[in-house]
Amino acid sequence: MKLIIINGPNLNLLGIREKDIYGNTSFDDYYKKLNSKFNDVNLDYFQSNIEGEIINKLHEVGFSHNGIILNAGAYTHTSLAIADAIKAITSPVIEVHISNIFNREKIRHNSLIAPFCSGSISGFGLKSYDLAITRFFLK
Amino acid sequence: MKLIIINGPNLNLLGIREKDIYGNTSFDDYYKKLNSKFNDVNLDYFQSNIEGEIINKLHEVGFSHNGIILNAGAYTHTSLAIADAIKAITSPVIEVHISNIFNREKIRHNSLIAPFCSGSISGFGLKSYDLAITRFFLK
Amino acid sequence: MKLIIINGPNLNLLGIREKDIYGNTSFDDYYKKLNSKFNDVNLDYFQSNIEGEIINKLHEVGFSHNGIILNAGAYTHTSLAIADAIKAITSPVIEVHISNIFNREKIRHNSLIAPFCSGSISGFGLKSYDLAITRFFLK
Amino acid sequence: MKLIIINGPNLNLLGIREKDIYGNTSFDDYYKKLNSKFNDVNLDYFQSNIEGEIINKLHEVGFSHNGIILNAGAYTHTSLAIADAIKAITSPVIEVHISNIFNREKIRHNSLIAPFCSGSISGFGLKSYDLAITRFFLK
Amino acid sequence: MKLIIINGPNLNLLGIREKDIYGNTSFDDYYKKLNSKFNDVNLDYFQSNIEGEIINKLHEVGFSHNGIILNAGAYTHTSLAIADAIKAITSPVIEVHISNIFNREKIRHNSLIAPFCSGSISGFGLKSYDLAITRFFLK
Amino acid sequence: MKLIIINGPNLNLLGIREKDIYGNTSFDDYYKKLNSKFNDVNLDYFQSNIEGEIINKLHEVGFSHNGIILNAGAYTHTSLAIADAIKAITSPVIEVHISNIFNREKIRHNSLIAPFCSGSISGFGLKSYDLAITRFFLK
Amino acid sequence: MKLIIINGPNLNLLGIREKDIYGNTSFDDYYKKLNSKFNDVNLDYFQSNIEGEIINKLHEVGFSHNGIILNAGAYTHTSLAIADAIKAITSPVIEVHISNIFNREKIRHNSLIAPFCSGSISGFGLKSYDLAITRFFLK
Amino acid sequence: MKLIIINGPNLNLLGIREKDIYGNTSFDDYYKKLNSKFNDVNLDYFQSNIEGEIINKLHEVGFSHNGIILNAGAYTHTSLAIADAIKAITSPVIEVHISNIFNREKIRHNSLIAPFCSGSISGFGLKSYDLAITRFFLK
Amino acid sequence: MKLIIINGPNLNLLGIREKDIYGNTSFDDYYKKLNSKFNDVNLDYFQSNIEGEIINKLHEVGFSHNGIILNAGAYTHTSLAIADAIKAITSPVIEVHISNIFNREKIRHNSLIAPFCSGSISGFGLKSYDLAITRFFLK
Amino acid sequence: MKLIIINGPNLNLLGIREKDIYGNTSFDDYYKKLNSKFNDVNLDYFQSNIEGEIINKLHEVGFSHNGIILNAGAYTHTSLAIADAIKAITSPVIEVHISNIFNREKIRHNSLIAPFCSGSISGFGLKSYDLAITRFFLK
Amino acid sequence: MKLIIINGPNLNLLGIREKDIYGNTSFDDYYKKLNSKFNDVNLDYFQSNIEGEIINKLHEVGFSHNGIILNAGAYTHTSLAIADAIKAITSPVIEVHISNIFNREKIRHNSLIAPFCSGSISGFGLKSYDLAITRFFLK
Amino acid sequence: MKLIIINGPNLNLLGIREKDIYGNTSFDDYYKKLNSKFNDVNLDYFQSNIEGEIINKLHEVGFSHNGIILNAGAYTHTSLAIADAIKAITSPVIEVHISNIFNREKIRHNSLIAPFCSGSISGFGLKSYDLAITRFFLK
Repeated sequence: MKLIIINGPNLNLLGIREKDIYGNTSFDDYYKKLNSKFNDVNLDYFQSNIEGEIINKLHEVGFSHNGIILNAGAYTHTSLAIADAIKAITSPVIEVHISNIFNREKIRHNSLIAPFCSGSISGFGLKSYDLAITRFFLK
Repeated sequence: MKLIIINGPNLNLLGIREKDIYGNTSFDDYYKKLNSKFNDVNLDYFQSNIEGEIINKLHEVGFSHNGIILNAGAYTHTSLAIADAIKAITSPVIEVHISNIFNREKIRHNSLIAPFCSGSISGFGLKSYDLAITRFFLK
Repeated sequence: MKLIIINGPNLNLLGIREKDIYGNTSFDDYYKKLNSKFNDVNLDYFQSNIEGEIINKLHEVGFSHNGIILNAGAYTHTSLAIADAIKAITSPVIEVHISNIFNREKIRHNSLIAPFCSGSISGFGLKSYDLAITRFFLK
Repeated sequence: MKLIIINGPNLNLLGIREKDIYGNTSFDDYYKKLNSKFNDVNLDYFQSNIEGEIINKLHEVGFSHNGIILNAGAYTHTSLAIADAIKAITSPVIEVHISNIFNREKIRHNSLIAPFCSGSISGFGLKSYDLAITRFFLK
Repeated sequence: MKLIIINGPNLNLLGIREKDIYGNTSFDDYYKKLNSKFNDVNLDYFQSNIEGEIINKLHEVGFSHNGIILNAGAYTHTSLAIADAIKAITSPVIEVHISNIFNREKIRHNSLIAPFCSGSISGFGLKSYDLAITRFFLK
Repeated sequence: MKLIIINGPNLNLLGIREKDIYGNTSFDDYYKKLNSKFNDVNLDYFQSNIEGEIINKLHEVGFSHNGIILNAGAYTHTSLAIADAIKAITSPVIEVHISNIFNREKIRHNSLIAPFCSGSISGFGLKSYDLAITRFFLK
Repeated sequence: MKLIIINGPNLNLLGIREKDIYGNTSFDDYYKKLNSKFNDVNLDYFQSNIEGEIINKLHEVGFSHNGIILNAGAYTHTSLAIADAIKAITSPVIEVHISNIFNREKIRHNSLIAPFCSGSISGFGLKSYDLAITRFFLK
Repeated sequence: MKLIIINGPNLNLLGIREKDIYGNTSFDDYYKKLNSKFNDVNLDYFQSNIEGEIINKLHEVGFSHNGIILNAGAYTHTSLAIADAIKAITSPVIEVHISNIFNREKIRHNSLIAPFCSGSISGFGLKSYDLAITRFFLK
Repeated sequence: MKLIIINGPNLNLLGIREKDIYGNTSFDDYYKKLNSKFNDVNLDYFQSNIEGEIINKLHEVGFSHNGIILNAGAYTHTSLAIADAIKAITSPVIEVHISNIFNREKIRHNSLIAPFCSGSISGFGLKSYDLAITRFFLK
Repeated sequence: MKLIIINGPNLNLLGIREKDIYGNTSFDDYYKKLNSKFNDVNLDYFQSNIEGEIINKLHEVGFSHNGIILNAGAYTHTSLAIADAIKAITSPVIEVHISNIFNREKIRHNSLIAPFCSGSISGFGLKSYDLAITRFFLK
Repeated sequence: MKLIIINGPNLNLLGIREKDIYGNTSFDDYYKKLNSKFNDVNLDYFQSNIEGEIINKLHEVGFSHNGIILNAGAYTHTSLAIADAIKAITSPVIEVHISNIFNREKIRHNSLIAPFCSGSISGFGLKSYDLAITRFFLK
Repeated sequence: MKLIIINGPNLNLLGIREKDIYGNTSFDDYYKKLNSKFNDVNLDYFQSNIEGEIINKLHEVGFSHNGIILNAGAYTHTSLAIADAIKAITSPVIEVHISNIFNREKIRHNSLIAPFCSGSISGFGLKSYDLAITRFFLK
């Protein structure tokens, strides 16, 4: 099974800064942990702060991978273009969020990409990624 | 570990009617399947079409169970009273939805209860419940 | 032909209080009148102030009765859950209102249940019920 | 008893075009059917695509006819001027719609004329007209 | 001096119906009164319930008359097309209303035509017309 | 004098949970205190988490009691049906809130029931109930 | 006949500044002109930039003068308190504006005071005051 | 105990005008009545129609008095500046209204000052002031 | 090929008035120019200021012509009835505008008819019509 | 004549995926077809999924090319920055869309870039590009 | 150079109350500090809680001073009258705020006066005043 | 002291195009001028039209520089992602704008980044940058 985690803007700072809030696990470390837990999964990882690069990546993997786990960060709420990309590709996309978006400012309550994702998981911290991978193994 | 699944209005018809959409698994059958998969969990189940009875149940289990898996159905979008109940109790509540709420009418895009839940899982069909239980085992 | 009239919140007070507005016919008396006029109809009657009990009743009769005549009262404008119930059942539901909802406050101009009803009749006083039954005999 | 059916814009195409949706009964044929069913009613008929001509007709018949059955079509949602005309005349006006307006686009959920009509009947197809005439015979 | 009063929809009923509200002076009588008071004015009068006929009339007189006194009735609030006509012609247009539009329903608080009129007078009953004519004599 | 306090959803948890916020006085204890302070009042008490049961109780007491003190909790902001019940009965209803509703989330700034209550008291903690009873003794 | 013109904020600068727009007639000069034209009127004049002083003046004259001509300037759109004052007094108030309020920014399209005035005249420059006085002489 | 009642715009007309609505008790008379009932309270009184003078008074008494009873009248809904003043001072402020603000126009449903007051009492006529004073004696 | 250009309200004034803006080509002259350029097209032309007459014309030609080029003028933004007519007929309709509607007032940014047209061309002056005809020749 | 077609996000997938909707012509093939049809035009082509790269390209060509044909895809509705770029350059920009944007979701009804384009063509499929080029040859 | 600082409502309490937030420098002390730093500036100071007195002061100095530094406090968001005053005078006005208005409640995000100021400086505490004076010395 | 100026989309065209509006100073020239004025500051400069590159730069300098001066151009109003980046870093960010954003279109009145900046300076032309640097030297 071939999966990829795509992280959007500012998620490269996870676990490095604001440690009091997000803990001191960097996403790289967490990615290693996921890799060893799901050792039968071919698990890619991509991060970019640039909206269009995320679209490029979705195009690149979106017709061959078995699934995409996407945390689009702030672009979740502003990027109609990423939403269009998800609609255009054929791999199922799961939307994940580390925090509960309904617990944040009004502008973050809406997700432009959700209508085109096969499901959403939010609010479980880094474990949201774990659950998303798990979903691909449920029959 | 003591968990409970609480299903809100109209979810008693799952798998019995509209089989072309939801399949022909009744929730009772699915519940049995979950029980046998998670045989080390003490898994309760409660369904009601009455908003206040859901509140009563949340009060009853909300200080002793290890977790609550709540699919509040249409009350998700209209019941401030259930939201208050979740805030008042101490057991963590996970919000689940069978379908992707952002794929439905505008009025269903907002969740009044989400801000008080520890996380949300939606859009995976009945598997949303499975992932919610799984979450309680992630460390 | 098997029909049922379901009345929602506060409609039990009809004809008993606010007689200057609604006249002094109680719904029970009117129901008797309907029964004798349509003596070839098997006409049930149910009233509840509890949203969830209305849903329960819709589930109970909604797969066997030839038609349901529903005056959901104030729940017309706030109950997404009753709307879901109507969508789930197979019996045709006719929405009735005693008064003209567009003549009342803004919040009553919208009907959450109308999109799932086969038709709406409002503003004719108690005669709205009579017309609704009549409709089942039109070919 | 002297009644009139007034049909607004595009209703002249009924039963002639889009037969798959509306059936192949033209309104003229249906009007004949109504005439023979209610043979004790003096039933007029008027159709216009011009907003102001509908107002002219309302003025003309609105002080002498026993009732007006008005399907204002799209003008239902945009014509404050027709609403004013209904308010100015003395004959009772019943608003009818062939389809359920709450099942269509948002802009059609509001009725500018409803507040001045004595009642509304919608969603029963051509039978909405039949029920409207029936109403004038209920005591 | 050549002026014209243009009255929009339903204003032909003035003084004939709803006498308790508007008095029993018909506009024709009032027009005669205006004619005799302002006997040095060449005062035309036109009324139509049809939006497009009002536009036609504005086009016809709008490049030769010294002024137009327009009571567009309900079209005041819905007709962008009349607004465009006023903008296109060269004669100054004064907007008049018999009643105070801010005292009526919300939808009547906005005037689409006001931005293109040289002034507005409202709320003085039929005297609003008198004041409008007076304005053309103020230096 | 016969009064009743009706408490809505989640108010049964008062003084039992979230003691750091609401203190450790349960409403039962406070009710006893009120009873001994106002020993000449016949003071009933009813609590329910079910919207329709509150309506039932309002119907039951609303034509005989001298006054009703209603804290409808979250239903204050969502229940048009309770508003209708208050309008239908004849006993005066005083709306009370423990906290200041304008200090909470936007959705709680509006009260659907206030227009039908004879007065509102909010923000004084449990003392809001005391003031409400006091009001019945002011001449 | 005893009338008063009340001018609100910034109207003291009329004719003194922005002469290219408003001309070089100060309001004092215009007031003299009005006095000599309407020499049988006892015409007072008051200007203040202070919302409360306008209210005080309305209270002072509002039970004895035959009419008040009020240009509330920017307070027209924000002062509910002046609106309350107009409602409380018994002298008729005519609202005047020098410019056409619908031709300015959105926030100036609404008038909080209009519902309590007997009429409105706007867009005729200083002549709006003249027409307002004229109105008191129309029979 | 040192308290002050501060009344905002137009409240000086209370009991003098619109006697049929508000009765013929002037606030001065009512103030005397309050003084004799609560003879152990040092009860000041201040009224102004000027927003800024109310702010000045709040500054003057807001660090020494035991409590302030404020009926800000129409400023309740528009004065962010009074709201700021209440926030800046240390004496507790109780908001009172004679009428039920939710029963009046939409614009009066919101209170800008409520978030900074310790409580609100509305709808009890002049008795609202009495209840507010009473509140300072509840323990 | 049989095409028709339908022009809505005020477009009869094109090239006759406001020459500084729209140039001094009348639409009649432009129509001749189009006729000679596209001499193999049977090109009709119709203009009306009356909404319902435009609907009548759409009904008349809408089942036989190969295409309709419609500039509905201000009715673009207010006429749901014209939108319905376009939906009912079978000839493809192209929406044209002389100016760029997004460069004008807010109310003109929305097009009620666009959803039922096969395409839209706006902002190219009279050349918008030329491009619309051209479109029918593209393969 | 030097023109350029600039395509925004996801348009690189045209004709490759979702062939049932968009046909199986890739934009590259269509571009060749345009080149041979308009063989006297120097026609460039640029596509990017990155908002800022589109801005860079607009800056690069926007002072020398005779015209720009821009299909900004989803950025049409969200990119104020592209709008600013169009405003800053001197080459005329024509906005094109393959589908009719008013036929899609609400969020796509608004175009941020339209106010700065010289015209818009939408809804004609790939032919929208052809018409845009044609426009540069109309005199 | 002649400048003036005008402070609006509640700013007289600066440095006296809420010392933990705003520090214990009174504005008088800070004003002295500014005077000695900018000793070549003739720097006036005015504070009022009364909207109209601020307008009076703007009128008084607004045609002679070289610049005005205005912190209108809460009036920033509600006073169209102060906005009008700024527009009417000729001295340039710089808007200053001690705190970042976008960090406060929604209602404070809008500035009615900003459109008429030559610039805005906010969020730098008392230093905002210093920067504003500095601006008058930049060439 | 180490500072950086970051300019967003289209600001690379400053001083090169639209010289009549922005003058003929390019930002590069202005940057040199700032460098020589503040010769004790280590002043970096970065410009990009790509949203994500601005985020990258903020990450890169945001934990070491003493301050960041950010003119995010149009991204100010649409980029939640840049707002998140500012929140994540530790260097203070000052928001600058050349023009007064409240003087432009509605969509530019809101700033998504302001809540996370330490202050804002707008409307002073290029001098806004100068004032921002000055601010870092105020004690």
